[in-house]
Amino acid sequence: MDKNLFKAPGDPGRLMWKSGEREVSHHTPIFDVVRVSRHNLDGSKKGSFVQLHTTDWIVVIPWFRDEDGVPRFIMEQQYRHGTDSVTWEFPGGLVEKGEDSAIAAARELLEETGLEGKLTLLGDVSPNAAFMDNRQRFYLAQEMEIKGVQNLDENEEIDVFSVPVEEAVEGMGKGIYDNGTMMIALGYFLRYAEKHPYLRETIR
Amino acid sequence: MDKNLFKAPGDPGRLMWKSGEREVSHHTPIFDVVRVSRHNLDGSKKGSFVQLHTTDWIVVIPWFRDEDGVPRFIMEQQYRHGTDSVTWEFPGGLVEKGEDSAIAAARELLEETGLEGKLTLLGDVSPNAAFMDNRQRFYLAQEMEIKGVQNLDENEEIDVFSVPVEEAVEGMGKGIYDNGTMMIALGYFLRYAEKHPYLRETIR
Repeated sequence: MDKNLFKAPGDPGRLMWKSGEREVSHHTPIFDVVRVSRHNLDGSKKGSFVQLHTTDWIVVIPWFRDEDGVPRFIMEQQYRHGTDSVTWEFPGGLVEKGEDSAIAAARELLEETGLEGKLTLLGDVSPNAAFMDNRQRFYLAQEMEIKGVQNLDENEEIDVFSVPVEEAVEGMGKGIYDNGTMMIALGYFLRYAEKHPYLRETIR
Repeated sequence: MDKNLFKAPGDPGRLMWKSGEREVSHHTPIFDVVRVSRHNLDGSKKGSFVQLHTTDWIVVIPWFRDEDGVPRFIMEQQYRHGTDSVTWEFPGGLVEKGEDSAIAAARELLEETGLEGKLTLLGDVSPNAAFMDNRQRFYLAQEMEIKGVQNLDENEEIDVFSVPVEEAVEGMGKGIYDNGTMMIALGYFLRYAEKHPYLRETIR
């Protein structure tokens, strides 16, 4: 096909909508449902749109090289209330009100695994731009040390274990690795690892 | 660190919870908020948990090689009500009630871009296992032909254009490529492309 068949996108500004009244139509412990009145720039389209308002989220990708030289991730096995199933995921959680995201990342890592490490922000994104208004930030944790014991929220039960990086890369998004946001985390990790190959390559 | 420091995960079955009553606590045009009563297997933990119940979602990754031999994606520029911003994303949308996901993928591709193509299912995942109960399926579209004109839902305004695959791989999850579910799509694409290198390599 011709690369010019579909023209370059126009000025994004002309696609913006104007927001009017916001009303919380439903409150839950983990998000609010908000209705926002909006119209496009020339006023030809308008309506009331649903937005899921919630705190920012963080995910921590804990990486280490084991005594055999194999790069590994620390992961968690836990029950998930969305899918009604048990999944394998990276540590993570909610940023508390007024909390810095990096502090939240360190806190969640320590609470869920007992580990502390050097954190590097790999990136941040809207988890779903269509209807969610929060940010999800992704941190790499390296140079980890055991600094405490697991200290979970009520109703959390988490198995902590390690998986070779290559196994997680191959498995993510299939079977028990069934959380799409972990695919996002892995995407950021793999792009960072392209510039820092020691994160993925095995030295035996 | 010692690879055996964190033991292998135990039987996932012992982490499962039992579901009791379900009640729709809030209804919106794009999802229902459901409260589910649940307890863990030994009954020591229990509560009412929030689940976002919605239809399945599909994403289509339209791929072609232009007349210069450069692999490109068809992408869309549109306003997003979650982030109140304009993003670049792959085509996609909601699976209608009773509709097959592959049919929904072909329908959304045709409606949003006027294209038809050969669809390959790359994978499916929970978009967020923590609180969402739906699936998101990812399709690759190849051998595309123009079969119609853009036919959008009310309130949709979409610019269709093409981007070199390498540019999208580098940019995804940054700047205007600000939708995490597109990172998931790209993750599935890149894994498939590892086994089908023509999808990414430029032949000049």
